[in-house]
Amino acid sequence: MKNKPVIVIPGFKFASVSAGIKPSKNLDMSLIFSEQKCVAAGLFTTNKVIAAPVILCKRHLKKGKKPQAILINSGNANAATGLTGQKNALQMAQQISAKLNLKTEDVFVCSTGKIGAPLPMNKINEGIKSLPNNLHEKGFHLAHQGILTTDAYPKFSHKKIKLGSKTVSFALMAKGAGMIEPNMATMLAFLVSDLKISKALWQTLIKEAVSQTFNSLSVDGDMSTNDTILALANGVAKNEAIKVNSKERILISKALKDMMTEVCLQIARDGEGSSKAITLEVKNAKNQKEAKLAARAISNSLLVKTALFGGDPNWGRILCAAGYSGANLIEKKTSIFIGKTAVFLNGKPLPKNETQAAKYLKTNDKVFITITLGAGHFAQQQIFSDLGYEYVRINAEYRT
Amino acid sequence: MKNKPVIVIPGFKFASVSAGIKPSKNLDMSLIFSEQKCVAAGLFTTNKVIAAPVILCKRHLKKGKKPQAILINSGNANAATGLTGQKNALQMAQQISAKLNLKTEDVFVCSTGKIGAPLPMNKINEGIKSLPNNLHEKGFHLAHQGILTTDAYPKFSHKKIKLGSKTVSFALMAKGAGMIEPNMATMLAFLVSDLKISKALWQTLIKEAVSQTFNSLSVDGDMSTNDTILALANGVAKNEAIKVNSKERILISKALKDMMTEVCLQIARDGEGSSKAITLEVKNAKNQKEAKLAARAISNSLLVKTALFGGDPNWGRILCAAGYSGANLIEKKTSIFIGKTAVFLNGKPLPKNETQAAKYLKTNDKVFITITLGAGHFAQQQIFSDLGYEYVRINAEYRT
Repeated sequence: MKNKPVIVIPGFKFASVSAGIKPSKNLDMSLIFSEQKCVAAGLFTTNKVIAAPVILCKRHLKKGKKPQAILINSGNANAATGLTGQKNALQMAQQISAKLNLKTEDVFVCSTGKIGAPLPMNKINEGIKSLPNNLHEKGFHLAHQGILTTDAYPKFSHKKIKLGSKTVSFALMAKGAGMIEPNMATMLAFLVSDLKISKALWQTLIKEAVSQTFNSLSVDGDMSTNDTILALANGVAKNEAIKVNSKERILISKALKDMMTEVCLQIARDGEGSSKAITLEVKNAKNQKEAKLAARAISNSLLVKTALFGGDPNWGRILCAAGYSGANLIEKKTSIFIGKTAVFLNGKPLPKNETQAAKYLKTNDKVFITITLGAGHFAQQQIFSDLGYEYVRINAEYRT
Repeated sequence: MKNKPVIVIPGFKFASVSAGIKPSKNLDMSLIFSEQKCVAAGLFTTNKVIAAPVILCKRHLKKGKKPQAILINSGNANAATGLTGQKNALQMAQQISAKLNLKTEDVFVCSTGKIGAPLPMNKINEGIKSLPNNLHEKGFHLAHQGILTTDAYPKFSHKKIKLGSKTVSFALMAKGAGMIEPNMATMLAFLVSDLKISKALWQTLIKEAVSQTFNSLSVDGDMSTNDTILALANGVAKNEAIKVNSKERILISKALKDMMTEVCLQIARDGEGSSKAITLEVKNAKNQKEAKLAARAISNSLLVKTALFGGDPNWGRILCAAGYSGANLIEKKTSIFIGKTAVFLNGKPLPKNETQAAKYLKTNDKVFITITLGAGHFAQQQIFSDLGYEYVRINAEYRT
């Protein structure tokens, strides 16, 4: 807990307890609570196998009038648990809402951890009983600890902005290790703010920011059974109403994107056993779809990931992945840059530049790669991580 | 060379030399030659970045009347080499055809190895001069050695079948390591036979067999810049004409598929650092496209591959990959079998069966996995390999 900034968002309180769901006895149940009624925005996994709590959250996001709480457990994902799982998720919402004197549909429930086993409801119920008594306005980092699983460290970001004469605060906590392959490590992210905003605009702004950050990390359609992003704004800052085409809207948008980008880089850097976070920029694609295809093929390529782990500016593997991605590329107009160094320029290798590019890869843990496809005017950014020995160890031995 | 069967295909001769393209001075140029004119069939990479020799082979397959030879070099893929590369590939064809007294378009040229560097044509030319003098009817395995790159061992298969009173022989040699990620390790396969058959039917039969074997190993669209399958049949067996709906056609089809399946399993088993070849069967998909999507998502999943390396029957990861593949699945009708053991049956985990499934995974190097999606009647088979530490080592250090 050392060296972490104190994070306080007016009106919000946080709690975490160890309910014994994790065999390690680490914190495994957390509660985020707003004393005032909030507007909520949410984005959820597109996996066809949907965990029970996600089904509940989607329903409550529609039905709930004034949400005020998020209850999270780690250690058990309540996924692939059928009707029992849905009953348990509902029971969690009912119990915590009774304790907090809220309507059931004004509470969200999230779970992360191993899948296929029923939730230990006796432990969960004990946790729910003690959580409300532990709520504290400075409990942000503690609650964050309680949602982590295989994460090497917590990922968070916070920001204050001025809207007119008012100061508005934002804080974002996230979990998600193993994001080397984003499609199966559950990603949970909770954003809280004292911003005053309409529900519709809040959902729009959150969705926009996510599409340019989390969705280019954990690509559309490639998600775990539990992936959830929830954002609560309680209006305590009492800022003036946000107009659709206003400077204020732009300021909020930028704050959300900056915070999410920061957290995405933290997540990519925590790819199990990875040594660096890579920001890939695909340029000059024929259309947006092809830009995404190329970005995804390159960032999912095992050969690219392992070369980067080895500090090897292997443009051949990057070119080849772009080639099989399905995106059009004109070879003689294609260039590849490692940082600012060209290693392949208009269809021709530049072997003399590879030493400099290798040095750049070996001495930075946040690196940039650019590829131009020479086929049009569309671009796509993607954040990913490299792949090393630790990844194999962690994932081959996960359940042993 | 010990313990390998002698492989002789009437009318065919083989040669290999070390031309010094590989720094190791290992064999790096090979020639496959038929004394009689052949019919040829070929299938090539669908990568948008196409190596120069592939462009030449496609052209010669169309233009050539009676092909008789395949010239292959390893150590340099002649890829991403632009017009110089195309000139060099043509020069190789011209020089070897002059030596063999053939038309240029009756020769195929293939290259595999590092990409982006021009071919060392002085070395290549010396190799071409000495290859014809080294041709030998028992040279199959030697020629095979000369096409390998990072392969841990050569992959081959051979077969004889009776067609009427005649015996027809087939032999298949292939290279391709790193097939864990089939999309970037060049796969070359050369099939030779003394079968008498029309060019059109030969192409049809080869294409059919490939679609059920190599294409379910190295999935459509996910190929290197050089992937090539060439098949020559020289008619020396003098069998009767093959009719379209005959028993003979079925016999040939089966022989081709059996040989290709055997070689695909050998390739999957040689996934760099892998411990087993996995045959995955996706069943009850809504349509063929969805069956392929699910098969591909599961077999490309790093988390599935590493779990299998660890001998862990982790059905959760398999289910989750099927879930994000885009294929429809009905969770309560979905089952997963490791070998013949159900670990997830009609939507319910069977934890008691996991010990048996783990034992099966740990004691076999060829394993079967089945998943039923409960959404329809379509099936897709896919062969792939698991992923271990060696993969990272080999590919992080490939160019250092």
